[in-house]
Amino acid sequence: MSLKSHAQGSPFPPTKPGVLRIYSMRFCPFAQRTRLVLAHKNIPCEVVNVDLVKKPDWFLALNPLGQVPVLQIDDKIIPESTATCDWLDDVYPENRLQPVDPYLKVWDRVLHEYISKLIGPLYGAMRATDASEIEMKAAEIKKHLQFYEEKLKGRGDGPFFGGSKPSGFDFLMWPFYERLPALTILKDNPVLEIEADKIPTLTAWDKAMRQLPAVKNTMFNALSHVNWYKSVGKGTPDYDMYLAEH
Amino acid sequence: MSLKSHAQGSPFPPTKPGVLRIYSMRFCPFAQRTRLVLAHKNIPCEVVNVDLVKKPDWFLALNPLGQVPVLQIDDKIIPESTATCDWLDDVYPENRLQPVDPYLKVWDRVLHEYISKLIGPLYGAMRATDASEIEMKAAEIKKHLQFYEEKLKGRGDGPFFGGSKPSGFDFLMWPFYERLPALTILKDNPVLEIEADKIPTLTAWDKAMRQLPAVKNTMFNALSHVNWYKSVGKGTPDYDMYLAEH
Repeated sequence: MSLKSHAQGSPFPPTKPGVLRIYSMRFCPFAQRTRLVLAHKNIPCEVVNVDLVKKPDWFLALNPLGQVPVLQIDDKIIPESTATCDWLDDVYPENRLQPVDPYLKVWDRVLHEYISKLIGPLYGAMRATDASEIEMKAAEIKKHLQFYEEKLKGRGDGPFFGGSKPSGFDFLMWPFYERLPALTILKDNPVLEIEADKIPTLTAWDKAMRQLPAVKNTMFNALSHVNWYKSVGKGTPDYDMYLAEH
Repeated sequence: MSLKSHAQGSPFPPTKPGVLRIYSMRFCPFAQRTRLVLAHKNIPCEVVNVDLVKKPDWFLALNPLGQVPVLQIDDKIIPESTATCDWLDDVYPENRLQPVDPYLKVWDRVLHEYISKLIGPLYGAMRATDASEIEMKAAEIKKHLQFYEEKLKGRGDGPFFGGSKPSGFDFLMWPFYERLPALTILKDNPVLEIEADKIPTLTAWDKAMRQLPAVKNTMFNALSHVNWYKSVGKGTPDYDMYLAEH
């Protein structure tokens, strides 16, 4: 199955009984969460990439909100990144992501509930045009990285939020962390640079995450992200960028 | 234990070993989610109400973000309404709220992920000052009520999102639904009125929810909500309002 994106007019690729499918977009951090879990659990899955500007009618019929990721298997449809990750963990228990201990499990949920405080200013900085606004967003990003630094430190045996193995939250947070260096380059503003010495535990986490096959399998480097966001900024997102090489 | 709110300077009420405590605020819809689950499961629990304008230092030490609800038992601290509800369901399995079937369970999560699209315009309308903004927010509220109407209809055996018994999502959504009639009165604008004939399934749900002991135990009527929000609007929220009668 081709990874080229399906735009309006593109025929619906027929589903096969019992075969899991993800509707994705190669640069979407939310869809990446689901692809990380799929890769980490070695779950066979068809990928159907969607042009999010010119959405095919069959995609909108499937998910009227028009967002990725969406999972589909037989008559089941599951949208929303967090929901897809939880469902995959329930249905494919290999390489379990949700801690069994209810207190550790609930803290994964708490850490996720706060993630919008990091994602918000990340995209806010990307959209920002004046320096003072960028500075404000950078301060928010750093404040919340500090929050996660402390929480990760408190988890003890590291390097992951899940301890010696990644838990669900590691994969929910990663795609946004992966994009932070691209943000600095894109805005060409050193105020956005992450000071590794102030977040040593997260920096060690970053290194450990990059060694995971699931991360290697789904990530782009900072410059590729920059080029992607530039194409978005011009109003002509190139959904098939790097497809030959990647 | 008194239900009067603890403000800055109020001494910390000592915890007792093995006794569950909720830090709450009597009119907070997020804290109400947790109190609904506590009541539904008949879980014994101490309530410590907090003045959210003049927060006690011991509350901020416990939860630096300063929000309610927070659960505490021995050395465990759990903030965030969704997290508290999930944790209570894991640790107190009586009157189970999360469906066992992974597909039903994941759809509870999906329905929750969309709830901000209802909560956002609800508070947006409350803050709005001009008629065109209220009209816009009312349209958003109605659109998303229609979304939930269709989803609830699709669940078949009703009257709850959980079927014949409430599931977790019923209690996550309820506090906001409970406040809709207050919003109409507060803004004195008929555009905010919910047209019951357009959402018959949700209207039946509303009726069924109001019969639940947990809802009866935690709810205020529309006029009480109005008076509460008026006190908030004046900048002097009366955290102990109706305490004698309620």
